[in-house]
Amino acid sequence: MNKTESMFSLEFLVRDYECDLQGIVNNACYQHYFEHTRHQFIKETGLDFAGMHKDGINPVVVRAEIDFKFPLTSGDIFFVYLSVKRKGRLRLVFLQDIYRKQDEKLICQGLFEVAILKMGKPINPDSVMKLIQEKFHE
Amino acid sequence: MNKTESMFSLEFLVRDYECDLQGIVNNACYQHYFEHTRHQFIKETGLDFAGMHKDGINPVVVRAEIDFKFPLTSGDIFFVYLSVKRKGRLRLVFLQDIYRKQDEKLICQGLFEVAILKMGKPINPDSVMKLIQEKFHE
Amino acid sequence: MNKTESMFSLEFLVRDYECDLQGIVNNACYQHYFEHTRHQFIKETGLDFAGMHKDGINPVVVRAEIDFKFPLTSGDIFFVYLSVKRKGRLRLVFLQDIYRKQDEKLICQGLFEVAILKMGKPINPDSVMKLIQEKFHE
Amino acid sequence: MNKTESMFSLEFLVRDYECDLQGIVNNACYQHYFEHTRHQFIKETGLDFAGMHKDGINPVVVRAEIDFKFPLTSGDIFFVYLSVKRKGRLRLVFLQDIYRKQDEKLICQGLFEVAILKMGKPINPDSVMKLIQEKFHE
Repeated sequence: MNKTESMFSLEFLVRDYECDLQGIVNNACYQHYFEHTRHQFIKETGLDFAGMHKDGINPVVVRAEIDFKFPLTSGDIFFVYLSVKRKGRLRLVFLQDIYRKQDEKLICQGLFEVAILKMGKPINPDSVMKLIQEKFHE
Repeated sequence: MNKTESMFSLEFLVRDYECDLQGIVNNACYQHYFEHTRHQFIKETGLDFAGMHKDGINPVVVRAEIDFKFPLTSGDIFFVYLSVKRKGRLRLVFLQDIYRKQDEKLICQGLFEVAILKMGKPINPDSVMKLIQEKFHE
Repeated sequence: MNKTESMFSLEFLVRDYECDLQGIVNNACYQHYFEHTRHQFIKETGLDFAGMHKDGINPVVVRAEIDFKFPLTSGDIFFVYLSVKRKGRLRLVFLQDIYRKQDEKLICQGLFEVAILKMGKPINPDSVMKLIQEKFHE
Repeated sequence: MNKTESMFSLEFLVRDYECDLQGIVNNACYQHYFEHTRHQFIKETGLDFAGMHKDGINPVVVRAEIDFKFPLTSGDIFFVYLSVKRKGRLRLVFLQDIYRKQDEKLICQGLFEVAILKMGKPINPDSVMKLIQEKFHE
């Protein structure tokens, strides 16, 4: 993804508890940043992760690829950019890049393949993509 | 609590991701250690936290008091000791102490008041205490 | 603390990964919210948690008391309010209350006794309190 | 990796606080499991993550690929298997698979490319690989 393809972005501030004994943000926290961005993006379409769960619909990540380019550390402010497209019949692919705010340094790039499960079975994500396209004029 | 009153204990090893940029275990992780110990204790009685939740029964901590005596750090092995008693009509009080294994140093002392909610309303914890007493011959 | 005594506040949004299988924010996350608020407050005075650590100065929580009044859940927006005072010669006491934004419902009240360690020994927090008072006209 | 190639394994029990509002282990926790297993493996060679950090040596993950096959949930016991090999001149590749204990179901497969930084510059991992081979007779 380059930034111009981004459909959505969210600003974060590193919290000290997210840093580990190396003094940098622990790898697992990036998945939290990516996940929170996806959920906020989905919310903008009118859907809602917790609400979907109550209806028996659960988006799940089936594959993640993450390139850690440069570490975030205490006090850093950063943006997570997001775009999404279809992959095959049953998957969505989210591309998510993290840039540090102060100097636009590329920090981390993530790719997340997501399936949408209804009662445990993957369903076609057409209706979700339609809501996304209506909202974000992809 | 002194150790002889302990009804249950669980051994843990500090994981590096639990340490923060001070190089010591982050305070919030102690609540994780305490919670996991309570849940394993409850499981020994034949109850189960996740299962209770599905039945609409949710134990919730209503008050916590934690004294941080000495920090845990990377590689430390420790025990969480636990005892429980009634408080008033509707609460259980868990006393939980953490000792480092190598030298039996007292690390942290916690007190947790727990209410048991059924559909959001506190219920009498008699049946839970009975199971505990049968199992642990308090 | 009542809100009028608050010296500082910070707005948060619950992130879905902070909710546990009960569907509500896990207790340990409140300590994260409280800690992040303290660190942002300290930063406003010109000090900085990560920077202090590099200089061998480490504020540490020695005692926490937390009353959980009502759970936060997915999507909730809330404020953490903070005030601080001296306790004895060597401790600071932070009072921190969490209120839900939509209806000003009291969610959680915390009290945190903090010692400031320099090379592992507690030091007098006068200089820190002076910076706080200059900044926040207590 | 198939299990026979595994050089090291570690047993875990899902802790309830690792489950999110879907009732399953949150994706980020898998990175914690994978990281803890790598650190315990490294420790077996006589090295130590926290100790290396104090000497200015920091292994860092530069790329992660994770396939989430089936979710772990409350109470599950599982193993993380690990093997490691060289990639190019400057990287190690850890292959890590998670299997549920009760039925040997494949849960998650991870690949982690790691660089070893000394004062921020990547160094040749020969000495680390030598220690690993001596210990684990690869």
